[in-house]
Amino acid sequence: RDEHITLAHGAGGKATHSLIDAVFLDAFRNPLLEPLGDGAHIGETAFTTDSFVVTPLFFPGGDIGDLAVNGTVNDLAMCGARPRHLSAAFILEEGFPVAHLRRITASMAAAAQAAGVQIVTGDTKVVERGKADGCYIITSGVGTLDRPARLSAAAARPGDAVIVSGPIGEHGITIMLARGELDIEADLTSDTAPLADLAAGLLDACDDGQVRCLRDATRGGVATVLNEIAEASKVAIIVNEDIIPVRPDVRGACELLGIDPLYVACEGRMVAVVARECAETALAALHEHPLGRDAAIVGQVNDDPPGLVLLKTTFGGTRIVDLLVGDPLPRIC
Amino acid sequence: RDEHITLAHGAGGKATHSLIDAVFLDAFRNPLLEPLGDGAHIGETAFTTDSFVVTPLFFPGGDIGDLAVNGTVNDLAMCGARPRHLSAAFILEEGFPVAHLRRITASMAAAAQAAGVQIVTGDTKVVERGKADGCYIITSGVGTLDRPARLSAAAARPGDAVIVSGPIGEHGITIMLARGELDIEADLTSDTAPLADLAAGLLDACDDGQVRCLRDATRGGVATVLNEIAEASKVAIIVNEDIIPVRPDVRGACELLGIDPLYVACEGRMVAVVARECAETALAALHEHPLGRDAAIVGQVNDDPPGLVLLKTTFGGTRIVDLLVGDPLPRIC
Ligand SMILES: Nc1ncnc2c1ncn2[C@@H]1O[C@H](COP(=O)(O)OP(=O)(O)OP(=O)(O)O)[C@@H](O)[C@H]1O
Ligand SMILES: Nc1ncnc2c1ncn2[C@@H]1O[C@H](COP(=O)(O)OP(=O)(O)OP(=O)(O)O)[C@@H](O)[C@H]1O
Ligand SMILES: [Mg+2]
Ligand SMILES: [Mg+2]
Ligand SMILES: [Mg+2]
Ligand SMILES: [Mg+2]
Ligand SMILES: [Mg+2]
Ligand SMILES: [Mg+2]
Repeated sequence: RDEHITLAHGAGGKATHSLIDAVFLDAFRNPLLEPLGDGAHIGETAFTTDSFVVTPLFFPGGDIGDLAVNGTVNDLAMCGARPRHLSAAFILEEGFPVAHLRRITASMAAAAQAAGVQIVTGDTKVVERGKADGCYIITSGVGTLDRPARLSAAAARPGDAVIVSGPIGEHGITIMLARGELDIEADLTSDTAPLADLAAGLLDACDDGQVRCLRDATRGGVATVLNEIAEASKVAIIVNEDIIPVRPDVRGACELLGIDPLYVACEGRMVAVVARECAETALAALHEHPLGRDAAIVGQVNDDPPGLVLLKTTFGGTRIVDLLVGDPLPRIC
Repeated sequence: RDEHITLAHGAGGKATHSLIDAVFLDAFRNPLLEPLGDGAHIGETAFTTDSFVVTPLFFPGGDIGDLAVNGTVNDLAMCGARPRHLSAAFILEEGFPVAHLRRITASMAAAAQAAGVQIVTGDTKVVERGKADGCYIITSGVGTLDRPARLSAAAARPGDAVIVSGPIGEHGITIMLARGELDIEADLTSDTAPLADLAAGLLDACDDGQVRCLRDATRGGVATVLNEIAEASKVAIIVNEDIIPVRPDVRGACELLGIDPLYVACEGRMVAVVARECAETALAALHEHPLGRDAAIVGQVNDDPPGLVLLKTTFGGTRIVDLLVGDPLPRIC
């Protein structure tokens, strides 16, 4: 067969999942990789990696630097780990201004400090003009799993509550608008932020095992994360469109762009699935943290139909919400 | 000032060092990063990262896949660690053939198996045509530091012996020839190989502390690694040109290209600095391993002039060997 990589393979949705299953998991298969979590759980350590190829490099609310630190911090936090040490690899395009690199490293240093992690090792490669797009950054991270419970996308059970930690879609829409290709005015900034404290507060508030799963809603958005959980746990997830927090400017831009905010990437929001008994406690813990002020219980886990995500719409209907298909917003992270 | 990134900033030599010091270390500074070793020593764990942007992706003796696994395995081995777990991040160019990706992941899987490591986490991003060059791979690795002694480029002492583990420059010259731009015939293959077993054999053969430092001679070659050790340890290193193993085909190609094999990258060779008392034992241990069959004691550590590397030439003279300047062989790894 004559297959080629398309932008959709990088969008985090259906094509990404197929590629990971058919190529990467197939080649590398082992029990630590197989759960396909935000990071790998290796004994008391969590380990994760992400590349960042966002364009533009600088955007309202952040830049590729703090995005690269927060993104890896968040994948560790979603494992239930305390993020500790990061690596930072740079692929630079010949001709990239050193002044831009300094801005980026300064914001990485600030983000690392804010998240309580250290950048302890790195690498620097340069490619010829036209072989990159200014600056790509790849961070990996290790964190310590201090808690006994292991979070997993396969741990959701019927009756559990589904929580979203704040308004969705701000990062993706901010990046789209920052490209200036759309004639939309909006007062938006990226939600890029480190979620480790917020996640720790939630885990502390609940008993061991009551928090089933955490996932940061990055590429593919909340809809994609919910599908991953529904599939891994073999449960249905039903969410209520009216309760999912979306800022008016995001909603407006999404309408003009013809995309559903449920599929738009966040970089500082997470989905939590928690036992029904601790749902209110969990919500209260999130509300106490500045990044969780607008957290809401947006739905619940059912047993049927397994593997599907259903949305109760504003107009009283119910529809299936699938994985993201295609790539409406390329290179947002 | 109006500085821009040049290819020399990615060559591993003088410009890379300046950029790391002035930009990355300056922004990220902390005690774990500061020694600028092959990886960071975090308690009993070693942590490292490298990007791979080699062109062509497939070359005699290997491809970007095994290079990416072996490169990170080797940086962990140079820390004195046992390599355990790797991450693998891919930046793919739109249009890249999935069949090529399968070849690459198969060779990564084989290399991981050969080195006794698992790829436990990863990431996949896609950029538009013209924003990458087919496939870039970034691996990070964690390993366990099971031995009490900590290796360090700052630990060389006057009297120590300097060992090179095998013939140098094969990887770099193989890549140059694989590009087909030169009208040179040579029967060469890349030396890409995992050095963890070879390094462990050496460490086992010597007493704790007798092996001062290990470094894989990648970008910038043996000359650059020797300079790093001389500078960090504030010692002189004197090496004998006649004893440094170089295959005739490498020597011939270097003469035609006008480059010194001392500056050409290896991907399966290391420099070891060991206490004089264990030099012969160390050499014997290396000779026992297939990757160390041609290992040689090529020089020694002196106290004066501190920070300099001196070469006794074939013609009886002595000259200073500096860090690599410029980038004679871009994108070899
Ligand atoms: N090239 C790859 N090789 C091995 N595993 C991969 C690769 N790409 C992704 N994975 C694994 O697939 C799962 C999903 O990866 P993905 O990058 O979508 O997650 P994420 O990092 O949480 O999301 P994002 O990258 O949008 O922040 C993870 O478990 C990851 O380790
Ligand atoms: N962008 C960066 N940020 C932080 N540290 C960096 C960065 N680039 C390199 N370093 C650090 O500088 C030192 C030298 O890096 P370098 O990549 O030259 O070593 P290496 O990986 O052994 O060589 P190679 O990359 O040729 O295999 C290492 O300690 C590395 O962690
Ligand atoms: Mg994630
Ligand atoms: Mg991520
Ligand atoms: Mg490196
Ligand atoms: Mg190295
Ligand atoms: Mg290296
Ligand atoms: Mg990822």
